[in-house]
Amino acid sequence: MSLTTDESASSATPGSAGSRRADGTHRLTSMLAPRGIAIVGASDNSGWSRYTYANLIRGGYPHATHLVNRRGEPVHGQPVVTSLRDIGQPVDLAYVLTGPPSLPSVMADAAVAGVRNLVVIAAGFGEMGEEGHKREEQLAELARGYDQLILGPNNLGFINTPDSTMPWSQAMPWPMQSGGVGIMSQSGALGIFLLNYLQSRDVGISHLVTVGNEAMVTVAEGIDYLVEQEGTRVIALYLESVRHPDVFLAAAERAMKAGKPIVAYKAGRGALGAKVTAAHTGSLAGDDRVFDAVFRQHGIIRVDSIEDLVTTCGLLDAYGELPGTRVAFVTGSGAMCGVIGDSAEANGLELPEFAESTVEELRAVGLPEFATAQNPLDTTGYVVIDTNLLPNSEAVVSRDPNIDMLVVNGSVPATQEAATFMSRYFTRRVELSKVSPVPVISMEFLPSDQTPFSREFRRSEGAPYVVDSLTRGIPALAKAIWWSGLRRATRETTEAPAAGPAIAGVPGAGGEWSERQVGELLAANGVPVIPQRLVTSASEAASAGEQTGFPVALKISAPGLAHKTDSGGVVLGVGSAEAAAHAYEQIVTAVADAAPGTPIEGVLVSPMRAEGVDLLVGIVRDGTWGLTLVVGLGGIWVEVLADSAVRALPVTPGEVREMLTELKSFPLLTGSRGAEPVDLDELTRVIARIGAIAVALGDDVEELEINPLRAAGSSIEVLDALVRWRSAATDGAAEAGLPA
Amino acid sequence: MSLTTDESASSATPGSAGSRRADGTHRLTSMLAPRGIAIVGASDNSGWSRYTYANLIRGGYPHATHLVNRRGEPVHGQPVVTSLRDIGQPVDLAYVLTGPPSLPSVMADAAVAGVRNLVVIAAGFGEMGEEGHKREEQLAELARGYDQLILGPNNLGFINTPDSTMPWSQAMPWPMQSGGVGIMSQSGALGIFLLNYLQSRDVGISHLVTVGNEAMVTVAEGIDYLVEQEGTRVIALYLESVRHPDVFLAAAERAMKAGKPIVAYKAGRGALGAKVTAAHTGSLAGDDRVFDAVFRQHGIIRVDSIEDLVTTCGLLDAYGELPGTRVAFVTGSGAMCGVIGDSAEANGLELPEFAESTVEELRAVGLPEFATAQNPLDTTGYVVIDTNLLPNSEAVVSRDPNIDMLVVNGSVPATQEAATFMSRYFTRRVELSKVSPVPVISMEFLPSDQTPFSREFRRSEGAPYVVDSLTRGIPALAKAIWWSGLRRATRETTEAPAAGPAIAGVPGAGGEWSERQVGELLAANGVPVIPQRLVTSASEAASAGEQTGFPVALKISAPGLAHKTDSGGVVLGVGSAEAAAHAYEQIVTAVADAAPGTPIEGVLVSPMRAEGVDLLVGIVRDGTWGLTLVVGLGGIWVEVLADSAVRALPVTPGEVREMLTELKSFPLLTGSRGAEPVDLDELTRVIARIGAIAVALGDDVEELEINPLRAAGSSIEVLDALVRWRSAATDGAAEAGLPA
Repeated sequence: MSLTTDESASSATPGSAGSRRADGTHRLTSMLAPRGIAIVGASDNSGWSRYTYANLIRGGYPHATHLVNRRGEPVHGQPVVTSLRDIGQPVDLAYVLTGPPSLPSVMADAAVAGVRNLVVIAAGFGEMGEEGHKREEQLAELARGYDQLILGPNNLGFINTPDSTMPWSQAMPWPMQSGGVGIMSQSGALGIFLLNYLQSRDVGISHLVTVGNEAMVTVAEGIDYLVEQEGTRVIALYLESVRHPDVFLAAAERAMKAGKPIVAYKAGRGALGAKVTAAHTGSLAGDDRVFDAVFRQHGIIRVDSIEDLVTTCGLLDAYGELPGTRVAFVTGSGAMCGVIGDSAEANGLELPEFAESTVEELRAVGLPEFATAQNPLDTTGYVVIDTNLLPNSEAVVSRDPNIDMLVVNGSVPATQEAATFMSRYFTRRVELSKVSPVPVISMEFLPSDQTPFSREFRRSEGAPYVVDSLTRGIPALAKAIWWSGLRRATRETTEAPAAGPAIAGVPGAGGEWSERQVGELLAANGVPVIPQRLVTSASEAASAGEQTGFPVALKISAPGLAHKTDSGGVVLGVGSAEAAAHAYEQIVTAVADAAPGTPIEGVLVSPMRAEGVDLLVGIVRDGTWGLTLVVGLGGIWVEVLADSAVRALPVTPGEVREMLTELKSFPLLTGSRGAEPVDLDELTRVIARIGAIAVALGDDVEELEINPLRAAGSSIEVLDALVRWRSAATDGAAEAGLPA
Repeated sequence: MSLTTDESASSATPGSAGSRRADGTHRLTSMLAPRGIAIVGASDNSGWSRYTYANLIRGGYPHATHLVNRRGEPVHGQPVVTSLRDIGQPVDLAYVLTGPPSLPSVMADAAVAGVRNLVVIAAGFGEMGEEGHKREEQLAELARGYDQLILGPNNLGFINTPDSTMPWSQAMPWPMQSGGVGIMSQSGALGIFLLNYLQSRDVGISHLVTVGNEAMVTVAEGIDYLVEQEGTRVIALYLESVRHPDVFLAAAERAMKAGKPIVAYKAGRGALGAKVTAAHTGSLAGDDRVFDAVFRQHGIIRVDSIEDLVTTCGLLDAYGELPGTRVAFVTGSGAMCGVIGDSAEANGLELPEFAESTVEELRAVGLPEFATAQNPLDTTGYVVIDTNLLPNSEAVVSRDPNIDMLVVNGSVPATQEAATFMSRYFTRRVELSKVSPVPVISMEFLPSDQTPFSREFRRSEGAPYVVDSLTRGIPALAKAIWWSGLRRATRETTEAPAAGPAIAGVPGAGGEWSERQVGELLAANGVPVIPQRLVTSASEAASAGEQTGFPVALKISAPGLAHKTDSGGVVLGVGSAEAAAHAYEQIVTAVADAAPGTPIEGVLVSPMRAEGVDLLVGIVRDGTWGLTLVVGLGGIWVEVLADSAVRALPVTPGEVREMLTELKSFPLLTGSRGAEPVDLDELTRVIARIGAIAVALGDDVEELEINPLRAAGSSIEVLDALVRWRSAATDGAAEAGLPA
């Protein structure tokens, strides 16, 4: 399904230039910041209608709101028109509450009225199986014919805070807290809960867009739009699947360049979860590990809960890009330090020791002798007796030369009484955040809701945002630090990584290839392959063995024969010419018996190799993300432990190196237990090259598996390989993007 | 340090009978439910004093509160006395706010006044290094001399809700919510944060006791006390270490028998965390994996955060023991189902499919065709149109024969407006929980604070407790189900597991043992050990080889020689008498060169064994929990992956079997990759027997290591073993418990 059908798209790049109009505005601007909205199907009996209208009004929508209702009687105390055709003013958006059967005529009316955007709330489409899918596809086709764009169907509308545009079809918490978090959600219902939760965490949003079934506008185009919005500093995603992966990744790249982190919660991590969301959305959730890999490769922060999504976005919105990796904590409780210590370790935070000067200054400001001057710092219960101890300690630590940021325990008073009690600390904290050489991040110990009082108080005091809790805040901090490191690297690296030599053309992709053909392809492109001689008689086998040097291995060469060993097609450790001749006959007979009719090309004679570490290097095609590289150690490691690393292709050598170090079995490559260490540079080069070959094979390849790739010291060599081509009826690479 | 010094202790069992007085009341009753309290060091200038007095008054303390102050002037608007001696009324508890130097005279006064319990708030003891430790020990000694019991020092007091006794030296949230959770905390400061958090979660407590440095009363005795309290249904622990492990475990056993789950949060999971809390409490945190094992073996629920502690306790207090393992979820949102699916899988929840009758009934009550009738159930956004759909679906699912409990999405209205809006659902929910054949557990989607309105509203409506959120509630539910299963098993199993044959006495424990001696000990006690012949000459080696049958292995026998292979003390695969004689000379010479002066007992000749799976079975002594069994597969599995399972001894065969299945490498024992499956029953028997031998060795053994224990099919055999004895200066088994 392609959305790039509009001939006015000025560029082939989907999603980026292709989604911008001639006047430079994003195609979604007139949808999400419309000048003029018509609610179609407005009715006093409809909850959707009451909420949508009330929210538009209460949100201060600055343009005209029109109500459309076939019966023509006043609704919500306002006059109505009976058709979009009768409005007589420019309307950018038809917000359609009526059911599926009415949509064609609504769209026809919209076309006449020049309305190019529709939000369709009704369910009954892709989520309803085959028939619903068809109905949805027809809807999109119709819209494309009218040059219209549809958000939904099966969603709950959207909220655009900077533009005071809030056509949202459910209850929402007021006042709507404005802030830097732009949210794209594939679930509408989630939005209901999420808005309340965001408010209780004091996290303000720029946008909340529910995309429903994504008949036309998907999350990918939404990200693309949000990257451009000045008021959006962080992009939050609730995902069940990704429909336009190319647009998605291009938008993610633009987000990174713009310094706007993307934080994603994707349901369906477990197998059960995937089944459940599939039932819900009618979309097939991709394999979760590939999502992990792709997100990581593209700097997208993945979180494991809605709560973590909100905490991470709140932290990033408030504190932005962080200047380094070294964190100091100052608290007034040993129990907090215990929690911090455990969580910092679990999340890989770097907690450096304090400089000597800091330790001295801490004593000078009154840190008692029974307190240990370490990071995380427990200033002890003595803070109750010396009320300056905690703020003074925070100030001292903020100047420590070993740290890049300081985390302090803070909370915002929930009542006036608490505010009076805490005001001294609060004022000191605000002052510190102004003069500190490093960011000072406030984190609550345990979570508490932000009350209307606390939200107002924090703003009036100009106080920094308080992150939810240690339990949620520390993982969020670790993720923010990770993203900040990538962002720095992106800014500092302007060149693309050097490409390897070009890949030689592939003759005759498709059909069934023998191992020999795969070996030749690899060898021709810089991947060491064990030497092989193809022989077609017992006497040729004997002389090939002599040329190779005994002992040798003999292996059947037969395109399409998958289980060579099981079919009796392999004999190892053949020590003489006589034995080689005998092995040849044995193999050919065995394979003919085991797999009658298999076309036999001959037998491959190759040298026996020293023991080493055997790796599996596999490339498979993921339903969402395309060619994906899997690397693991062979045998039990992959089979019993599923010890493997995954990346979407293409990969850089740096990413391959990272994959190797991720393996639990990595120590086996570095010479644990007395083995010879493997040449990791060469191994990395070879695997990256295999990845590049797979990419060059492109749309034709379904699977490429090297098993084993034997690594023994500096010798890295393919011992066996197979390729599977896509069936003739390939579905092609989907192009996507919004019509301009 | 033993607390069982009181001659009136009627039994040797520490902590249980030993902590009960002649009249049957627990020794801690007069401490924690005292009739008459005197605050010593009462002062208007002291925050501690102001809070303690105010909290006692506001909490409605039903007995007399006396204020003691050397100066004798009125404090908190009340008359004071200058000494405990002057009160002239019975006082059960002196609540002492004065500093360390004053304590001896306060205790002397208390002794004269007949006050047998003291809470000591002051810091400056065990948390202050060597000197502080000594001071704390002296304090305890002094108390024992006076027959007094001290809670603390370095704590913040306690709260006893059923007895309206709340001597708590910090601010606390009012009204104090009474409930079934009894809390013992090794941190005082945590209590401050915890009380607010408990209130915001609507979790009520029976007790909060902060034990400070545990000079006399430790968490263990606290559990023992709480088990007896009628108002306590769940016991919550904040731990940094365990000081009286025997009392602790005995109390845990009594808690299980009484059907009161113990839920523990222990800081210091990571290495860094352990360092941090050690600095804080001056106590050495035990090895975390052993804590995990011990907690699990004794049915103690371990949680990983304060938030999880509160959620799990809240759930258990409200819903108690759960009747099975099969859970159904009914929601109105696909996003919730996604979260549930992922979390249920991650936490090992069992979500059975609905019975056919349930699916039919769901359609009958209006579940739309586009909704999938599966567990977890998403009734879809259609619930907005048909407001009976959700409650009807819940009722239908509650009657499903495949489930043991139903989880529904619920929240308590936070305001009157919300209450009016939600009342229909709320009433139906309350009705359902009364008629449902299975427990109906309410869980919020995302967490929100319980407001004064919501707490009051829930009680007035008689509505069930609402568990915090899906993210916290599902792991808590999984833990509650785990505990409930243990509880059922405990109730159903009345006999102790059959003990194996008695262990033969150990001659000459201590000193350095050769491998041969260890082998004989094991063999004499039912553990198969590879046959070994001890020879002391080359010719004996040759004939021993002939008797054994070639090939054989020769190995040095030298007590105390640790690295036999490295010292040239091992020759494998010896194929003839001549070779055996030669190997003998070679070994003796090599060891004499490599480790001069090592007393050589001779050389062991044993048969070569077929390959198999090699296991490491080790017993080590943990600082807190004593002898601990570690089982893992040898080689890379233990060395590279640290793939091992841990339990405190003694263990049942069932626990050993569980340990094996925990191993990542377990598939290697069951015949993965074509290997012969190991006889797991025999392997389990042998490992359990090794554990029993270690237990029989008792206080003398420091370490017993079998490496390898070779398992090949049904042959399980010790190939090598060593024992290390404790040094002569053993510190003995600490006895503990409260004086009666």
